[in-house]
Amino acid sequence: MQNDQRREFSIDYFLSAAECNAQQEMSLSLLAQRCIDIATAHANRIGAGYSRMLELGASWVLSRMTLEMIRMPRINESFAMTTWIQSVNRHFSERIVEIADAKGVAIGYGRLVWVGIDIVSRRPIDLTPIFSALEPSERACPIERQSRLTAIDQADETSMYRFRYSDIDFNRHVTSSRYVELMLDQWSLDYFDRNRVSRFEIAYLSEAHCDDVVEVRRKGDSRVQDLEIVNGGSVITRSRVTFVPRHTDGSMGCDAE
Amino acid sequence: MQNDQRREFSIDYFLSAAECNAQQEMSLSLLAQRCIDIATAHANRIGAGYSRMLELGASWVLSRMTLEMIRMPRINESFAMTTWIQSVNRHFSERIVEIADAKGVAIGYGRLVWVGIDIVSRRPIDLTPIFSALEPSERACPIERQSRLTAIDQADETSMYRFRYSDIDFNRHVTSSRYVELMLDQWSLDYFDRNRVSRFEIAYLSEAHCDDVVEVRRKGDSRVQDLEIVNGGSVITRSRVTFVPRHTDGSMGCDAE
Repeated sequence: MQNDQRREFSIDYFLSAAECNAQQEMSLSLLAQRCIDIATAHANRIGAGYSRMLELGASWVLSRMTLEMIRMPRINESFAMTTWIQSVNRHFSERIVEIADAKGVAIGYGRLVWVGIDIVSRRPIDLTPIFSALEPSERACPIERQSRLTAIDQADETSMYRFRYSDIDFNRHVTSSRYVELMLDQWSLDYFDRNRVSRFEIAYLSEAHCDDVVEVRRKGDSRVQDLEIVNGGSVITRSRVTFVPRHTDGSMGCDAE
Repeated sequence: MQNDQRREFSIDYFLSAAECNAQQEMSLSLLAQRCIDIATAHANRIGAGYSRMLELGASWVLSRMTLEMIRMPRINESFAMTTWIQSVNRHFSERIVEIADAKGVAIGYGRLVWVGIDIVSRRPIDLTPIFSALEPSERACPIERQSRLTAIDQADETSMYRFRYSDIDFNRHVTSSRYVELMLDQWSLDYFDRNRVSRFEIAYLSEAHCDDVVEVRRKGDSRVQDLEIVNGGSVITRSRVTFVPRHTDGSMGCDAE
């Protein structure tokens, strides 16, 4: 593999009809899933994947993900995703994913923060032994780092959900993209016809399991909503969703609804 | 495109960790989704896809799907899917999907029956105008056609579910693979540790929409279970799930649990 392919790794995609949401676009949960997939594939290729981590008795855990899109890939559209590592330190690696249209023009970015944890203690490990495999790229990413997501003291709306078999991943926890769906499911189909998500931030704080009954709490205004998924006393995820009205599609504008 | 690539169309896949279920295998709903995807991709390539159907004021609708697996693709496994049309008549096309391991050995099959419907009347159209694009292959498929799935008179178990935004597809109906998940979600994680689905049959009878509250009804023995998703008086899907204990993995055996 050439050095520049080690530093930056790309996959071409085609968005089939069957993969689209009701607005005939890529859903946010599929985008989240694809960002996780390409991060995993790149880590495997540079020798910093799950099998390398297993040699250290460790595993990668996604800690934070921020997705910001000028627009989503549309039905029957070809697009490409390119990923690179922006920075590493002893405890985490920050990875960028760029989503570009068929002409190579960027239409959005993801920022993913991965932590290496010890499989037994579930505590962060020192990533120094795999630093040599984690070569950061100089390439810039224009979107802001994740906001500090704080506790919701008094929710405007709450709902309950029980996780089921199909929500569970290979680690026997609720799958990362399922939380994205559960959060967006707090709004109606009609709301998504009129608005789109321009920025989505999620912090994964603890794990939910099959049959856990969780509370989804939200609070905010017509543009920015904070959400929490809570299982008894413990917070599973915190999230911030920024909506823009669809008539401003193509801009990152901040018009309220 | 060569004639044999028109007749039989293949895609290579790699099952990433993030795509796996709790048993570290491909989930049945992802398999269903991939079967729909490859069918769509092949139809597009031979000039019988959604855009050709739209010229006739029509669309493809999946009517029945039967999946039978010796085993599922496993975590980090390469596999291939190959599809061909087995038969066509005026009102439907029957398509086969073979799933093969990295050595080319078949590990399972799908049978999909697609109907062409008029977009306005929702009635079946005459497929004769696109017969020339639908060239059946001689290649055999070893799995049985779908059973006749009849009404469940007295259910053993029932549960309720409300469809949400993330369950909806580009047609603004509940997405085909979501019904597969909802049906399997009637069993526990532990049950799937001890048993796997060897055969899954589903008939799509009518459409469910966002915010529909449906009843999932099931009845059967430890090996074969029939399920219905019912919305008020109308049946949305009927399904039959055949389980085998996991200790017989690798056989198509009919041992009861």
